[in-house]
Amino acid sequence: MATSPRITRDWVVGLKVVTGSGELLNLNRGLVKNATGYDLRHLFIGSEGTLGLVVEATMKLTSIPQDLTVVLLEVPRMSDIIAVLQTFREAIQLSAFEFFSEAALQHVLNHSKSTHPFTAATQYYALLEFENESAETMKQAMKAFETCVEQGWVIDGVVSKSEQQRRDMWAYRERISEAITPFTPYKNDIAVRVSQVPRFLLAVEQKVLDEYPAFEIVWFGHIGDGNLHLNILKPGGWDIDDFKHKCEKVSNKILAIVEQFGGSISAEHGVGLLKRGQLGFSKSAAEIALMKSVKQVFDPKGIMNPGKLLAP
Amino acid sequence: MATSPRITRDWVVGLKVVTGSGELLNLNRGLVKNATGYDLRHLFIGSEGTLGLVVEATMKLTSIPQDLTVVLLEVPRMSDIIAVLQTFREAIQLSAFEFFSEAALQHVLNHSKSTHPFTAATQYYALLEFENESAETMKQAMKAFETCVEQGWVIDGVVSKSEQQRRDMWAYRERISEAITPFTPYKNDIAVRVSQVPRFLLAVEQKVLDEYPAFEIVWFGHIGDGNLHLNILKPGGWDIDDFKHKCEKVSNKILAIVEQFGGSISAEHGVGLLKRGQLGFSKSAAEIALMKSVKQVFDPKGIMNPGKLLAP
Repeated sequence: MATSPRITRDWVVGLKVVTGSGELLNLNRGLVKNATGYDLRHLFIGSEGTLGLVVEATMKLTSIPQDLTVVLLEVPRMSDIIAVLQTFREAIQLSAFEFFSEAALQHVLNHSKSTHPFTAATQYYALLEFENESAETMKQAMKAFETCVEQGWVIDGVVSKSEQQRRDMWAYRERISEAITPFTPYKNDIAVRVSQVPRFLLAVEQKVLDEYPAFEIVWFGHIGDGNLHLNILKPGGWDIDDFKHKCEKVSNKILAIVEQFGGSISAEHGVGLLKRGQLGFSKSAAEIALMKSVKQVFDPKGIMNPGKLLAP
Repeated sequence: MATSPRITRDWVVGLKVVTGSGELLNLNRGLVKNATGYDLRHLFIGSEGTLGLVVEATMKLTSIPQDLTVVLLEVPRMSDIIAVLQTFREAIQLSAFEFFSEAALQHVLNHSKSTHPFTAATQYYALLEFENESAETMKQAMKAFETCVEQGWVIDGVVSKSEQQRRDMWAYRERISEAITPFTPYKNDIAVRVSQVPRFLLAVEQKVLDEYPAFEIVWFGHIGDGNLHLNILKPGGWDIDDFKHKCEKVSNKILAIVEQFGGSISAEHGVGLLKRGQLGFSKSAAEIALMKSVKQVFDPKGIMNPGKLLAP
């Protein structure tokens, strides 16, 4: 089966930008193939406005997904989650592979006053989605499910039978942020290679609980991308400033684990001002020096989004 | 239907490079998501070794395509070819959409001593390929074919019924380069936006024949990518140096048309030494100046593949 069509930076087929020197660049102009030297378009994507202003972007289109079906799985051990992902990926074309912890689910259930999707809870849940194109697709998905159960990686599962059920199952995942907001979550948006996710998650969790056993940890994220959202909730009665201070202390220890795993300190949300001091956990000194020189080329006066991404 | 999974630069998930200053950079390290500033990996892809040496690349894997089926179509008018592409794309997920001219096909048939695939020849042929996943896929493909015939865009077509037939049909397209080699072809590898292909092809053909009516033109290429291979064959009896000289003269007029269409003077094969003087047809003066400054950042001594891509 083919791989799911992800929206990636390649879908930006054209980019008009104005550099810090006032030059208007018309980069790649909508071409699919173009082997004429440095592709400056890709330097601007993710540069957080520090090289120039994007004034126009040309995007590729794709088709609307048809007949999406969600499967929600009970996965007792984090160490099995990659095997589950691989088993389904070999069988069908996945458009999503998400996960969340029982702690995350409990917050959603309390917040939305809904009932638990399974008769017996477990530690982690995987939510996967695919285009249910034919009877064969569903047969392959069920075969993958059976393999996961036989191997003991999955203990139970439910399949959406209608669009409403599909939305309800996504709600367990999508309402987590909203449900934990009252608990003043300290958030981290981190990524490692997909195969490293279980070891990484357990190493981070261990470190946080070693430092502060009272902390409640809520995990969710995009396993298919190696991207985890770590949320630490403020224990009841704790002073908020004291909590934040402790989180900042433990955060640098978490980022050291990210560095050790060769991961990213910001998978989706960029660097900005908050993380610029921690860029060294994900980029080498040589890379940061080169980034500064590249910035100098496009924005010699330092007027484009000054102070963001790179410390002066 | 989903879009076909193309191998693009996003499939390079990690790149180890040594810059001209001798720094070893370990770029992106296999991550899927990483929003930590300038993605230097993408600056190295396509830089033709002028910024540094790639010493290791980490690539994503994909699945092996299953049950590939080829459809060969007779398309009398170039101006209809994009409508044919769109009609099939809306119906099924294409893994290839190629084209070639009757002149190209005649060279292959003469060279391989095979017979014409259709009872009556036409001006152009489109070759498309897809994964024949289910009866529904084939039904959709046949519906698209019928639409194309009803509209008068396509006059006849053949579908591969076995792996051998599929290979034989691809041979019409893949043996063109080999078949025209004895005719000392002058080659151009050019691209425009997909929608512009018919107008662009006809404008280039008109220009070449206006200048040299004796030239034989053989077209083939990847319509789905907007990428055309223009081959001008040496007329029998012409002196080879005289032919090359005339081709070089007309080549700059072709590249001026590429520029006018906002296209690429090198879709697949890079710039190197041969095309560096013509880079201005595809990149603005400001872009070339910025490329030179970027080169200065990564290779201040100018020791990485000197003279290639950018004129000194």
